[in-house]
Amino acid sequence: MVRHFEEELKQLKAKLQHMGSLVEGMIAGAVNALAKKDEDYAKTAYAQEEEVNRIQIEIDDRCLTLIALQQPAAIDLRFITSAMKINADLERMADQAINIVESSSRLFACPWCDPVIEKLTNMAERVNMMVRDSLQSFIDRNDALARGVLLRDDEVDRMKDSLFLELVENMASDPGNANRSLGFILIARNLERIGDHATNISEDVIFMVCGKDIRHHMEDIH
Amino acid sequence: MVRHFEEELKQLKAKLQHMGSLVEGMIAGAVNALAKKDEDYAKTAYAQEEEVNRIQIEIDDRCLTLIALQQPAAIDLRFITSAMKINADLERMADQAINIVESSSRLFACPWCDPVIEKLTNMAERVNMMVRDSLQSFIDRNDALARGVLLRDDEVDRMKDSLFLELVENMASDPGNANRSLGFILIARNLERIGDHATNISEDVIFMVCGKDIRHHMEDIH
Repeated sequence: MVRHFEEELKQLKAKLQHMGSLVEGMIAGAVNALAKKDEDYAKTAYAQEEEVNRIQIEIDDRCLTLIALQQPAAIDLRFITSAMKINADLERMADQAINIVESSSRLFACPWCDPVIEKLTNMAERVNMMVRDSLQSFIDRNDALARGVLLRDDEVDRMKDSLFLELVENMASDPGNANRSLGFILIARNLERIGDHATNISEDVIFMVCGKDIRHHMEDIH
Repeated sequence: MVRHFEEELKQLKAKLQHMGSLVEGMIAGAVNALAKKDEDYAKTAYAQEEEVNRIQIEIDDRCLTLIALQQPAAIDLRFITSAMKINADLERMADQAINIVESSSRLFACPWCDPVIEKLTNMAERVNMMVRDSLQSFIDRNDALARGVLLRDDEVDRMKDSLFLELVENMASDPGNANRSLGFILIARNLERIGDHATNISEDVIFMVCGKDIRHHMEDIH
């Protein structure tokens, strides 16, 4: 029974990692398609979203079944309920990637703006590191890695704020392209929200590993 | 045993409702303190946040204990794991209310702008209705109420977008007060994120009540 349960947990981790890879691919793909003005990418993105949705339901069902049939001990129970929360965060990241694809489709007709695209690409890379590390910190029960994600979220917020200000200035100085600037702002906001979800995951991990005292003293970490 | 479990579920619902009321109070209080330039409110807000954090941990522990000791049936297990997710969303709303208090403290020194304050107050009222209805929809397993929250989220997003555009115009036409406009934008963003959390709760409820098919076809609802 114990060995079977360990095997189930291992499979659950593998499923979550697979889902994480897909979500990372969607984030990178969405921003890459924007940079390359690749209108056809939307079809790929929608197919990936369906796959993510399917896996989310599978993981959710697997967790509920594990709890119901195996009656896990406290530490494993906490791991499984955390997996359910993380699963929801990953799926919402995929939704944000789809939002990026949809905003992009309205931008393809606009005159281009390479420096902004470059900044969005940088942001997406940072955010994807957060996604990867937050999930890895969960798999390895590694609270130090999770704390690193929180620090990087501050950095992503700063990148977004700076880009936001730049785009607001663009809107003021070039009102004819205000819609384009607004589109870029929305995409930056989607990336920031993905970072927020990675932060949620990391906070869950720190709580899971370090217990209840740490969760509400996050200011010590920043 | 069954009666005892029912009693436990009833207490869990009551705890969540208590937490929801506290969070609503924090949101209304934060925006009200901004409108009244009430600098002393911050102390009250921090005390409320501590109370919310304490209750969050209590609810979380209660859920884990319920699962471990009572081995609930599928439908109750889903209810309890949803309660854990909702608990996390409520606590993050309280964090956003604290962010509003902190942004406000930097605004008290600025010249005032009543029309913007009025719009933020309206937004806060809408958002609080979303919080209340999303939680009630969970307690009553009422998916129609949850769907209403999703519609209202679109409305809040529109209110935020319109306020955002107005503030961006203010920044361009009155650069000396750009910091004030930015502060208002941040507060509008905090309110929008609270609405996002209420949306998360409502999506969980719709899934819980209607099963797995509905969750990934939200476009039918909008």
